[in-house]
Amino acid sequence: MSSPEFERNLEKYADVLIRVGLNLQPGQRLAILARIEAISLVRSLTKKAYQAGASYVDVIFNDEELRLTRFQYAPRDSFEESATWIAHAITAYAERGDAALWIGGGDPDLLKGQDPNLLATVQKVEAKESERYLELVGENAFNWLVAAAPHPAWAAKVLPDIPADQREAKMWDLIFDLSRINDADPIAMWQAHIQDLNSRRNYLNNKRYAMLKYTAPGTDLTIGLPEGHNWEGAGSTSQKGIFFVPNIPTEEVFTLPHKDKVNGTVTTTKPRTIMGTLIDKFCLTFEGGKVVNVSAEKGAEVLRNLL
Amino acid sequence: MSSPEFERNLEKYADVLIRVGLNLQPGQRLAILARIEAISLVRSLTKKAYQAGASYVDVIFNDEELRLTRFQYAPRDSFEESATWIAHAITAYAERGDAALWIGGGDPDLLKGQDPNLLATVQKVEAKESERYLELVGENAFNWLVAAAPHPAWAAKVLPDIPADQREAKMWDLIFDLSRINDADPIAMWQAHIQDLNSRRNYLNNKRYAMLKYTAPGTDLTIGLPEGHNWEGAGSTSQKGIFFVPNIPTEEVFTLPHKDKVNGTVTTTKPRTIMGTLIDKFCLTFEGGKVVNVSAEKGAEVLRNLL
Repeated sequence: MSSPEFERNLEKYADVLIRVGLNLQPGQRLAILARIEAISLVRSLTKKAYQAGASYVDVIFNDEELRLTRFQYAPRDSFEESATWIAHAITAYAERGDAALWIGGGDPDLLKGQDPNLLATVQKVEAKESERYLELVGENAFNWLVAAAPHPAWAAKVLPDIPADQREAKMWDLIFDLSRINDADPIAMWQAHIQDLNSRRNYLNNKRYAMLKYTAPGTDLTIGLPEGHNWEGAGSTSQKGIFFVPNIPTEEVFTLPHKDKVNGTVTTTKPRTIMGTLIDKFCLTFEGGKVVNVSAEKGAEVLRNLL
Repeated sequence: MSSPEFERNLEKYADVLIRVGLNLQPGQRLAILARIEAISLVRSLTKKAYQAGASYVDVIFNDEELRLTRFQYAPRDSFEESATWIAHAITAYAERGDAALWIGGGDPDLLKGQDPNLLATVQKVEAKESERYLELVGENAFNWLVAAAPHPAWAAKVLPDIPADQREAKMWDLIFDLSRINDADPIAMWQAHIQDLNSRRNYLNNKRYAMLKYTAPGTDLTIGLPEGHNWEGAGSTSQKGIFFVPNIPTEEVFTLPHKDKVNGTVTTTKPRTIMGTLIDKFCLTFEGGKVVNVSAEKGAEVLRNLL
């Protein structure tokens, strides 16, 4: 992965992440959380961040293989242990209003077949440790961003028909494409895209819908909206007053359901991974806003632990 | 780097580091500090550590390139900033008596030509932050170990006449060889080696020398030893009572000089790297235990900042 074209695109992608996604301000610190395989993107981001005036770029790397090794070999009674410093470090960043960037995308089947009790223990420990941090994320206390980099196992799921040695390049192409990088001026493209999502948000806010109805194979769901609900567009404003776009790519506008007015059944059409376990074709049934039934073709147990 | 022979040697090396170097105990936590290029060794160490009963293996990765990027692009007034969490995290480990393993070996010329004032600033900030930690290392509050993994730029310095694509393998061979891995039973080899160093230590302790005299090209140095001085061998015992060998490889026995009785001149014959700057052919002149002159063919400024 080192053709001049790839290097150019990687640089443009890093530029969009730093200038549009985070909208990093001169003098801000930036924490990046990344898998070690994303190193080329991390290096490009670090350069762009310093060029944008970052006072410090702090990268916290992780390696998924080590998580798998733990499940395979660690003493069975040791799974309450954790790297507590990670939560402390990123919470301290969040409380200061520093920027944060997570690079997602890993092996969707990493922990397939591991003991569900151990999975649940780790999930519980990590959820408790990151509680305060996730509150700060929810409050947009700071400008944050989730972006993607390819992983061989993920690429194999998405592109089973592409020869293995071409998958990483193809995944990068897809990520660049979805992130509007394949344009002479991606920053301008993003400004136009944000305007477009804003007008859709405004349209929905003007309609003041009382209820949304979704129908599809396996789905028959109504979602009541609270009075005074508010649609949000591509971007948010942090408590420090910085406008940022927390997901790149994004095509989304969103709002909040009324907590008692969700009824019916919804079935997913795309898989997703939670903590190294693939969850596929999952189906939730709601009555008065409460989940009354959960099923899944894959990963039902992990899903139930979350609910 | 993935021949079956290499994999076998890597596993034997990891075994020696965990079982002889750290002498990791069941239920102990282990912190590993490593460059991302050392990933294959890190994965092997993590497996061996869990197999030895470690309750948790916590790897803190770093990437040297990011340090260089900072010197190249970060705002000139931002060099007092640092990743304070690293010192906090490893000091907390040390205070609990957890094991720690550093993997050394990087680009000796990483920061060549960078602004010496900025280098001095970073050096000062990092020294201050790690003060308490280094005290705990000095007191052997916990079992710790420094080991090596190749780096392309380091390999190029050591093996300039070997073709570039064979240098990493050759460096691994040298590290395996110096670490007594090329034997059917490296653990037994190490036990014999420790006995050998212990008998040399005992010999020196029985002699009760008053003074050591070193003579060589560029060196004419006398070192007075204090009364009641003590020679140490390959291993140390941590405050938790764990016998460990803090450097692998090691061929060393050592003692403490009398603080007022070092006189003369010493000149190095091998280079060394401090914070990404190569220091070569350096020469120190002592009078009554004090350094009265410092010179170096390379890196004199970094050396003076340290003294």
